[in-house]
Amino acid sequence: MSSDFNSVAPLLNPASIAVIGASSDLGRVGGMPVKYLFASGFKGGIYPVNPSRREISGLPCYPSIAAVPRPLDLAVIVLPADRVVQAVRECAEAGVRGAVIFSAGFAELGATGATLQEEMASIARAAGMRVWGPNCAGLINLHTGATATFGSHLSDPRLIPGSIGFVSQSGAVGAYLFSFARQQGIGFSHWVTTGNEADTQVADYVGYLADDPLTRVIGIYLEQVRDAERLMVAVHRAHAAGKPVIGIKVGKTDAGRRAAMAHTAALAGDSAVYAAALAEMGILEVESFDDFLDLMGVVAGRHVSVGRRVGIVTISGGVGIMMVDRCVQAGLEVPELPVAVQERMRVILPFAATVNPVDVTGNIANRPEVYAQYLELLLEQQSIDVVVAFLGHVVLAKTGQRFGRETAAIGGRSGKPVWLVAMQDPEGVVRAAAASGGLPVFQDPVRCIDALGALARVTSWAKDPERPAVLARRAACASVAPGRIVACRRVLSEVESRAFLRSAGIPGPREQLVHSPEDAAAAAAALGGPVVLKVISADMPHKSAADAVALGVTVETAAAAYSRIVARARRHRPDARLDGVLVQEHVEGEAELIIGARRDDVFGPIVLVGAGGVLVELIRDRALALAPLDHAAAARLLAQTRASQLLQPVRGRPLLDEEAVIDLLVCVSRLAWEHRHEVASVELNPVIVRRRGEGALAVDALIELS
Amino acid sequence: MSSDFNSVAPLLNPASIAVIGASSDLGRVGGMPVKYLFASGFKGGIYPVNPSRREISGLPCYPSIAAVPRPLDLAVIVLPADRVVQAVRECAEAGVRGAVIFSAGFAELGATGATLQEEMASIARAAGMRVWGPNCAGLINLHTGATATFGSHLSDPRLIPGSIGFVSQSGAVGAYLFSFARQQGIGFSHWVTTGNEADTQVADYVGYLADDPLTRVIGIYLEQVRDAERLMVAVHRAHAAGKPVIGIKVGKTDAGRRAAMAHTAALAGDSAVYAAALAEMGILEVESFDDFLDLMGVVAGRHVSVGRRVGIVTISGGVGIMMVDRCVQAGLEVPELPVAVQERMRVILPFAATVNPVDVTGNIANRPEVYAQYLELLLEQQSIDVVVAFLGHVVLAKTGQRFGRETAAIGGRSGKPVWLVAMQDPEGVVRAAAASGGLPVFQDPVRCIDALGALARVTSWAKDPERPAVLARRAACASVAPGRIVACRRVLSEVESRAFLRSAGIPGPREQLVHSPEDAAAAAAALGGPVVLKVISADMPHKSAADAVALGVTVETAAAAYSRIVARARRHRPDARLDGVLVQEHVEGEAELIIGARRDDVFGPIVLVGAGGVLVELIRDRALALAPLDHAAAARLLAQTRASQLLQPVRGRPLLDEEAVIDLLVCVSRLAWEHRHEVASVELNPVIVRRRGEGALAVDALIELS
Repeated sequence: MSSDFNSVAPLLNPASIAVIGASSDLGRVGGMPVKYLFASGFKGGIYPVNPSRREISGLPCYPSIAAVPRPLDLAVIVLPADRVVQAVRECAEAGVRGAVIFSAGFAELGATGATLQEEMASIARAAGMRVWGPNCAGLINLHTGATATFGSHLSDPRLIPGSIGFVSQSGAVGAYLFSFARQQGIGFSHWVTTGNEADTQVADYVGYLADDPLTRVIGIYLEQVRDAERLMVAVHRAHAAGKPVIGIKVGKTDAGRRAAMAHTAALAGDSAVYAAALAEMGILEVESFDDFLDLMGVVAGRHVSVGRRVGIVTISGGVGIMMVDRCVQAGLEVPELPVAVQERMRVILPFAATVNPVDVTGNIANRPEVYAQYLELLLEQQSIDVVVAFLGHVVLAKTGQRFGRETAAIGGRSGKPVWLVAMQDPEGVVRAAAASGGLPVFQDPVRCIDALGALARVTSWAKDPERPAVLARRAACASVAPGRIVACRRVLSEVESRAFLRSAGIPGPREQLVHSPEDAAAAAAALGGPVVLKVISADMPHKSAADAVALGVTVETAAAAYSRIVARARRHRPDARLDGVLVQEHVEGEAELIIGARRDDVFGPIVLVGAGGVLVELIRDRALALAPLDHAAAARLLAQTRASQLLQPVRGRPLLDEEAVIDLLVCVSRLAWEHRHEVASVELNPVIVRRRGEGALAVDALIELS
Repeated sequence: MSSDFNSVAPLLNPASIAVIGASSDLGRVGGMPVKYLFASGFKGGIYPVNPSRREISGLPCYPSIAAVPRPLDLAVIVLPADRVVQAVRECAEAGVRGAVIFSAGFAELGATGATLQEEMASIARAAGMRVWGPNCAGLINLHTGATATFGSHLSDPRLIPGSIGFVSQSGAVGAYLFSFARQQGIGFSHWVTTGNEADTQVADYVGYLADDPLTRVIGIYLEQVRDAERLMVAVHRAHAAGKPVIGIKVGKTDAGRRAAMAHTAALAGDSAVYAAALAEMGILEVESFDDFLDLMGVVAGRHVSVGRRVGIVTISGGVGIMMVDRCVQAGLEVPELPVAVQERMRVILPFAATVNPVDVTGNIANRPEVYAQYLELLLEQQSIDVVVAFLGHVVLAKTGQRFGRETAAIGGRSGKPVWLVAMQDPEGVVRAAAASGGLPVFQDPVRCIDALGALARVTSWAKDPERPAVLARRAACASVAPGRIVACRRVLSEVESRAFLRSAGIPGPREQLVHSPEDAAAAAAALGGPVVLKVISADMPHKSAADAVALGVTVETAAAAYSRIVARARRHRPDARLDGVLVQEHVEGEAELIIGARRDDVFGPIVLVGAGGVLVELIRDRALALAPLDHAAAARLLAQTRASQLLQPVRGRPLLDEEAVIDLLVCVSRLAWEHRHEVASVELNPVIVRRRGEGALAVDALIELS
């Protein structure tokens, strides 16, 4: 699959570019690429194509792509939709390796447009030519000046080449972030927008950038994922190369998804599934453009990773408190300094607070050497991974540049990252001085700590040898089970569900299906002790709504209970076909969970676990992961739930059978994965968990087929 | 109490200012106030006092405060701590109405400093002179130019007079926010830092600003609240005048509180209590300086309130989705537009998305009149309270000023607020054009929506006729109950607790205290049916840890159970005094809650309610409010919990006795309030809730005295 990613190279690193539909009006869409290629110093060949022009901006203009005298890496197609197919065909015939299509008027307009798009894509595929778009804003390779784009975000064409590879599905959002980043001095290696993704998609570019030596970090803006597995492979490749992937995914709420449908005619998908899938891939998900750029700015610097243990030096006690609060909320630690170190600090500055945060007060305006000494002392501590320094107006007004430079120098000497918060730096002198050393510089202390927390999370994910690896799990479990489910109904009855689950190794209570009051009594006697009676009918999957369940039934009352619930069920749904009544042992346990799986259109089978029974609606305690799970992944997933606390021996409660729950999760996840072509969903609720060694039983089971 | 607030007027609006310890070096702390008073155009009298100078900056310098020829409103004292007391005494004798004390070296340094501070404060109190600080950075009245402050935040002394009254306990944080706000063009009416608050505190200034005609909004930065009731009165006064109060409170986490202790030697208090108390007062709490300034900027504009129903017009579909997502998360609505309106919109621009968000695309760069028409159509809708417009680089690059002005003009004609997100406005021309019409202007769409959500929350709070009014509740319940609790122990035994609760109208199960196995059997028979046995001993408040409880005991097994649990309790705590064994009816119910109260050092008695029993640790579902509660406040509090869903008849569960729970909450809250001088905490867990009409019973009760 790796060579696949390489096939987009002519798009991302072209040596020669034709502009089909080039205009001599450099302010028009057809003229802008020519203008930008000039202005950005592109060293390759530029070939305008337009039958009605002889020359554009001093370059010879060709009547057709076939007339261009040399083989071409990239053609930029700037034509109305109805002429794009022909242009793509001519490019394919001329041996062009890749084409960028700005034109709108394809799949985003509905079925007719989709047909046109597919026609165009299949011509390209047949010729081995890669296509970008349609309906996209193109690309910029900031290191070579290949600016195959239009739009006013390049109205100032000075490029800032950098180490961030950025891929956006939306041209508009891509353009905003481009200008926004430039405004802050953040440089990109490549800037890519993918539009309708007829051929190439976000995953292809992520995979390419994973191997690109000039790219150290990858940022993506997503409205939808087209090929989840391809994205997983690409992101995995990026991580293997030590490159963090930062992402924004929009369309998280129902209202947002409706808006996304109006925008791109694509379902944005279930946000909880997306969140779980992005987290499992190790994509650092952020919520706003500010957060996105904050993190991009950080990882473009010297350190792309950071630990959790923070040392803080501040000139304001109040801001110190604020940052500590936020560290705790962001999952960071602020360890107390050793007593000996605190004593050394107080020798230097008697009135400083030295526990951590270290408050040197505004007095360091007059004694800058104190700041340096404290910063070095903090960086020397084994218990500290990263130091955040807060400097404000009082010390920055006159000597900001000096403080910025000194912070950068000390950070440079240390192997550990130093982050600077410079509050009030309107001219940007502190930022410039510090950034020259690759230091992250923030204005707002809370935003600094939030970015630090986010990077620490992704760092610990990347360093975790047992981190989730869904690709490996799926590879290890590659087979599709032969169709073991024989059913003519979409929703299996409880008896059918349970028979299937039992065959997959998932235990349920002892039970017997009966068809008369007498048999019910006999079954109750055979099971010994109180039993539960349930009317079984695939027409009534929700038995409790029909009151077709009797609890706490004894041998003596079984026959009467049978008649009572059958009568109720008949009243509730006179037309339902009844399959009989299930007599089930009464299972007692200490905790109730829900375990389930369902197939997601984008990510395939997803497993969930959480608090079950009445707690399901009350606390919405659900953790999701991509199926299948191995034992370690199942244990991690369970540990994410609050319900896992129910299994622990606290406050006089007994230790429960956590292992049995994990085994059950593994079984359900494998079943959902192996039967992914047949099974739409599995729900076990409640799963009754008993004491350690006594197991966990799925008391109610519901399977839905596709 | 209102005249009290007025007593700080000479501090906030002085007509004459002396600077005691004035220095002729205008770069020093003693020189800066003189320099700033000149530079900021203060029209009142300026009187430097320093026995070793004849003249400072062309002004006559006086040897002592007594030598100043006229009565003084304000003296700024810039002397070492050991000379402050004498200076305050001289000011008091000279009839000065108020003094600002910059000097550090008082309570923040410990007991000796605290004594000095109290001496100083009592001299001022005796003379009726108000004091500010010590250890503060003074004040600025931006409308009169009274700049009784020092520090580099005024190194650019051009003041931006505005409508935000700002009060900070920290001088450093106050200074940052001052410069930060100025950088963004946000103006203040007053800027105040309060330091150690020996005499006046944040509440005093909030109360004054509530009446100040030039102040429309009040911002506060808090590390601790000294007099909660005074703050409640002041904030209530601000709301009565239609002025929102925005606050940051630091020291929320344990680590943050430790840092706060190191900083100000003051306990920052329990963050959950603070959050509940600030929410109940209607203070809009924000978490970062960015959020704080975002909101200040907004409310300094035309509209200090906003509704929840948002119309969005965007030139980017992607950003539109993002904003809708965030609206939902922020509790805002994005209603679909009426079909007729959508049709009108499509006549104007056929390819626009019109549901809401309305996506006009970058094409409006060429057709700006479309933007205006859409904006006006959105504002006309009855279903829309506020419109957010997103404009980006593509339309702002050339015509930003025009779009800004047009947005402001349309917003000005409409009675409804319009908020603008201008992404990429590096020169600030869009902001300036829009802000001239009082429009809030943001750069990041997510931050815009967050601010909108926050303002909408506080608006709906302010408009709610049934909003919580703790002052009224406390006034209506003013009496302190005579000491009804007679106990020689700090923790009451369950029997003592229950007797006291019963006297306060709080029901428990039927029960009997017995002292022999035989009596236990007799009691079980009398109570009829299964019972619970509990060893009673104030030395063992946590019975379950001692296994000193027996459940499901019948008449037959009662005697044996008695002996068993007494033996266990003796083994567990051989030295414990046993008061007997409680035989209690077995109470069954459908849901378990926890109801409690405890006394907070700052805010007095606090009530809490949440999911009880095993759920307490599992879901930490607790809602807090200030005691006492009336029926309406108790109902609101209960509705904030997830546990309240347990009381509703969903999924086959019965409707439970919500009224009984509310009554119980009211009772507990009144008890905690009336006995606030004796009772430190009350915990009822579990409270068993039965079906509607059957009541709620506190099965376990624990009362702790102070």
